Amino acid sequence: MNSFGRIFRIQILGESHGPLVGAVIDGCPPGVPLAPSDLECDLARRRAGSGGTTTRREADVPEILSGLFGGFTTGAPILVAVRNADTRSADYERFREVPRPGHADFSAGRKFGGYADLRGSGHFSGRLTVGLVAAGAVAKKLLPELEFATRIVEAGGRTDVEAAVAEAAAAGDSTGALVELRVSGLPPGLGEPWFDTLESLAAHAFFAVPGVRGVEFGDGFRAARMRGSEHNDPFVDAAGRTSRNGAGGVNGGISNGNELVARVAMKPASSIALPQETFDFGTGAMGTLEIGGRHDACIALRGAVALEAALAVVLADLALVARAAAPFAPFATAAAPGPDTRAGGAE
Amino acid sequence: MNSFGRIFRIQILGESHGPLVGAVIDGCPPGVPLAPSDLECDLARRRAGSGGTTTRREADVPEILSGLFGGFTTGAPILVAVRNADTRSADYERFREVPRPGHADFSAGRKFGGYADLRGSGHFSGRLTVGLVAAGAVAKKLLPELEFATRIVEAGGRTDVEAAVAEAAAAGDSTGALVELRVSGLPPGLGEPWFDTLESLAAHAFFAVPGVRGVEFGDGFRAARMRGSEHNDPFVDAAGRTSRNGAGGVNGGISNGNELVARVAMKPASSIALPQETFDFGTGAMGTLEIGGRHDACIALRGAVALEAALAVVLADLALVARAAAPFAPFATAAAPGPDTRAGGAE
Amino acid sequence: MNSFGRIFRIQILGESHGPLVGAVIDGCPPGVPLAPSDLECDLARRRAGSGGTTTRREADVPEILSGLFGGFTTGAPILVAVRNADTRSADYERFREVPRPGHADFSAGRKFGGYADLRGSGHFSGRLTVGLVAAGAVAKKLLPELEFATRIVEAGGRTDVEAAVAEAAAAGDSTGALVELRVSGLPPGLGEPWFDTLESLAAHAFFAVPGVRGVEFGDGFRAARMRGSEHNDPFVDAAGRTSRNGAGGVNGGISNGNELVARVAMKPASSIALPQETFDFGTGAMGTLEIGGRHDACIALRGAVALEAALAVVLADLALVARAAAPFAPFATAAAPGPDTRAGGAE
Amino acid sequence: MNSFGRIFRIQILGESHGPLVGAVIDGCPPGVPLAPSDLECDLARRRAGSGGTTTRREADVPEILSGLFGGFTTGAPILVAVRNADTRSADYERFREVPRPGHADFSAGRKFGGYADLRGSGHFSGRLTVGLVAAGAVAKKLLPELEFATRIVEAGGRTDVEAAVAEAAAAGDSTGALVELRVSGLPPGLGEPWFDTLESLAAHAFFAVPGVRGVEFGDGFRAARMRGSEHNDPFVDAAGRTSRNGAGGVNGGISNGNELVARVAMKPASSIALPQETFDFGTGAMGTLEIGGRHDACIALRGAVALEAALAVVLADLALVARAAAPFAPFATAAAPGPDTRAGGAE
Repeated sequence: MNSFGRIFRIQILGESHGPLVGAVIDGCPPGVPLAPSDLECDLARRRAGSGGTTTRREADVPEILSGLFGGFTTGAPILVAVRNADTRSADYERFREVPRPGHADFSAGRKFGGYADLRGSGHFSGRLTVGLVAAGAVAKKLLPELEFATRIVEAGGRTDVEAAVAEAAAAGDSTGALVELRVSGLPPGLGEPWFDTLESLAAHAFFAVPGVRGVEFGDGFRAARMRGSEHNDPFVDAAGRTSRNGAGGVNGGISNGNELVARVAMKPASSIALPQETFDFGTGAMGTLEIGGRHDACIALRGAVALEAALAVVLADLALVARAAAPFAPFATAAAPGPDTRAGGAE
Repeated sequence: MNSFGRIFRIQILGESHGPLVGAVIDGCPPGVPLAPSDLECDLARRRAGSGGTTTRREADVPEILSGLFGGFTTGAPILVAVRNADTRSADYERFREVPRPGHADFSAGRKFGGYADLRGSGHFSGRLTVGLVAAGAVAKKLLPELEFATRIVEAGGRTDVEAAVAEAAAAGDSTGALVELRVSGLPPGLGEPWFDTLESLAAHAFFAVPGVRGVEFGDGFRAARMRGSEHNDPFVDAAGRTSRNGAGGVNGGISNGNELVARVAMKPASSIALPQETFDFGTGAMGTLEIGGRHDACIALRGAVALEAALAVVLADLALVARAAAPFAPFATAAAPGPDTRAGGAE
Repeated sequence: MNSFGRIFRIQILGESHGPLVGAVIDGCPPGVPLAPSDLECDLARRRAGSGGTTTRREADVPEILSGLFGGFTTGAPILVAVRNADTRSADYERFREVPRPGHADFSAGRKFGGYADLRGSGHFSGRLTVGLVAAGAVAKKLLPELEFATRIVEAGGRTDVEAAVAEAAAAGDSTGALVELRVSGLPPGLGEPWFDTLESLAAHAFFAVPGVRGVEFGDGFRAARMRGSEHNDPFVDAAGRTSRNGAGGVNGGISNGNELVARVAMKPASSIALPQETFDFGTGAMGTLEIGGRHDACIALRGAVALEAALAVVLADLALVARAAAPFAPFATAAAPGPDTRAGGAE
Repeated sequence: MNSFGRIFRIQILGESHGPLVGAVIDGCPPGVPLAPSDLECDLARRRAGSGGTTTRREADVPEILSGLFGGFTTGAPILVAVRNADTRSADYERFREVPRPGHADFSAGRKFGGYADLRGSGHFSGRLTVGLVAAGAVAKKLLPELEFATRIVEAGGRTDVEAAVAEAAAAGDSTGALVELRVSGLPPGLGEPWFDTLESLAAHAFFAVPGVRGVEFGDGFRAARMRGSEHNDPFVDAAGRTSRNGAGGVNGGISNGNELVARVAMKPASSIALPQETFDFGTGAMGTLEIGGRHDACIALRGAVALEAALAVVLADLALVARAAAPFAPFATAAAPGPDTRAGGAE
């Protein structure tokens, strides 16, 4: 239940205040050059997202404990682990009685019958995105031809993102944000009609990142307000380029070779310094909750690279599935094997 | 690749102009009372969505060809088939040379190497939602305690939906629409932290429905513009009700017992009567495409019930998974088995 | 639960006395030339297996109801259906009270809570192998380079198989048999170390065929009685041929390029004409059961081709998985990509 | 590809001479009391199997690095790791040129393109069964009502197993063995008709254990030599007990409540002290291979507990799947829900 993918499969592991966080990556082909240092860039991007906000300090040194030999992946499962250093034994048990609004304390409690490790949100913590980011970095090694461009386009409805975050932080509050992801270099043909459309898989992975509330591709929600004559996006050349890429790179669930464009709405962090009125299940009445500790003012700052990693994981898997699902090639013969293959066929 | 689910699994089958469309449902428990007539209500809702638009006429009589005995499901796979009656042998081969903007003609051609059946969009057709709607109707039989409420809240940006559709149809055009889905009666505890969050699975299924461009839950994209103090949604009673259900019924990827609220943006139909300028891969130059045949002016009219079915399928699967994943119950003992289970524990 | 495979996936459908039996094949690549007549040869082998024994007569005409267009697979799911013609409405309800020894009546009853369709053994019937045989025939189209040789090497411990079956049939009895399967032309490299070894997958599929009680590869059970110096099977040439193929073509779970050799023990048919003493759950006492109807004297006669089909399905899947899992090939460069690749490397 | 199971899923990790070996267990319900010491008994049984043979000394101290809190499983993935201590940097590269007979050196080389870590057989090593044994110990915690009895019934065809092993070891040789597994306490109803029969899943897991060459249930290969009248195994009481348990506890792929009986043939260890003539891919001619290092004279000594663990993992998964697949229970009503449920129904 905690794994994802068909061929390139990842499994997220660990707890915020347990010994480690990490991921197992299964199905990575052998022969991929890989070193722990390959993971550091994206882990650093994730860490930098905490600038000025949470004071938890983690070096996030990744160890690759299996599946690697002589500088290359071996084809065996890859275990990436990052030790947790700066853990604290605060009284998280309190949150069983007064579950934090917006957090998983209540719903996890109901699901796991009170057995969940809620210290620092445990397995639900944004810290678990360390494993996802590491897996994404491995995925990108399989996709050297792709270019990922991810940025926060709005925070709190404003485009001066840094200022918006700083103001929220200063107020002891937090702010939501809008993340845009673009991938160029994607070949046409990735994704399935039912049910594993490219959007389905990407959305599945995005919504697993803590704090995501909405996902759209291309014209997205604006498409609901458009007419077909306006929305349709004609092809303009033999490469399959479309006039305005309103489809965001996907037709019928399958990549069309244009840039992939997704936007993801991330909510404001639920943990804020401001006191909150909420139900106290211990007393059976409303009470005031003050959440001490270390907070992110804008989880999208760290979340953006996690979303990019989620997308990379999806694309690596689809790239491997596409190898398996390529049209059948029988023994070479002189006779042409099948139907007209011009626009609607393989190159 | 065309299946979905962990325990309650569905597989979509067929082509628009082939012998049939349908679905196989595997993992449905035995003992569910079921008859073909149980599928008719939702199939009729789907069919009614074509009112005033496409002139394709299908009776959509569902046959249950396996997995049913004496009025109950047996636990074996259920094959639901609906024969296609009103098929036409129009020259769909034309669309290999001039792929229709917004359709899968081009991307499917690249993926399937020219072998795809493109007649009436083949396996990509909205007609395939017949199988999904049938599967959703079976799923709902497993969820008698749930109440689904699905409606189109906007078309073309307007709330007078019928008029907006009629105007677009009259203009030989089509219109996008916004669908809202609400489910009440859901228990807390459905969904997984990684990767099968409730939103992940629902979005996965929604984005498999042709024409979906965006999905959001609760506050959705508005959350990106909010502050935490505004967005947080405190608990207000011992049942776990929250003040304004801004989370749309999901915290940390797991249902919290409040109403599930999702909104889905559907694009305008890509097939319109108006001529379109697009690239002709046969001539190697831009050309004019006129799409004859039968068009839907607003695919959301039929799509809404397909989205509801997709959600029902996800919830049925999660309900069965929850049975499997329930906290461990060893032999009854006098001693209490574990930790405090008040708010954060099972009831 | 009723599906199998990672990329080339099959799902068995139907009941012995329901409208049809068949299979859905998902993940078959597009462009495979396929016609219903391609399935007839193996279906005829299966039918011939009933010669002289059961009197049920079925023409077994396969229909391909989806996934096929213009004589080629499209990449969409393939539904193969065979209608049941010669069904009888005998009182199978009797077997709920007096479950037949060796049959699934009792265990299925406990599993499915009395809802299983037990007419002609329903979903458990050997008739369901029609779908498996059809899927195997499709799988073989993906594997034109392989040669399958399957034969019954013993029945009732005797090598004069036909006579042994005839004698058992004449006595109103049935006989078990030993089936040997050989596949030549298999490339090295198919299978995974954990858990999807080639033997694991083949055994998984074999044991799904009704009546299988044992599976072995190469030296099989004899290996338990051997010493290492005797059992080891040295390589004798640069192609990787081994001296006596005692490994049956598999080392470490992965094909080594030698002939694949498996042996499968099939039990005698449980339905026999002779009266049997068994518990009557209706009366709560031992009673005598006489099973009327049509019996196979040796289920291996039909089962052999089903086993071969099961193996073909496994190998087709592994062949497609191998495409996905092939060593990483970055952009073509002059520099050698990695380690020494002589014996232990790819060709 | 390296994972197994539907709900209770395990993934094997690590390499013989890498930093660790272990397993990830996903889908374990919350609330299972668990401590590292729970794993020690079976790890010790596995270790003891090396008595008098290999001189590799590993303490095999298991660490549980995630998914555990306060002495109970949390429902999150459980990472069990055992550090490798006694590793050696012998020149395993030699085996790329002269692949060891009976080992995976050659086939793994072809599969992984020369990138596999072959030190101590890497991911293929019998040492990897540490992870399986650990996972099996967790699985058994879910199955307190079951009793496992596993023993080596023959080695080298002899029943005086210890002497047979000692003689082979003294001769610088190794010996195969036959392992019998019995499980009592199993309820009826576990397993699926297609494809996940109880035998299919058990055989799948057994054949993943290095060195397994054959698997049989109940009468096994003897069934091929029997007649139906002799083989059938009538029910003798209302509990479903059969006269001689020839079916080994499984009918139609589903447990029937009798003792589960399986026998597994394990080959002699391939690494022996005696010199072996085999092909040298470096010189292109036959050569003599002497394998130094530490050898097991009978891998079944350690393998038996690994087989038992494999079976426990299968049964734990089936027990959880059975919870999900139980007959549908609608709201309690006065009316009887369905068909006759006496022998063929649920209790």
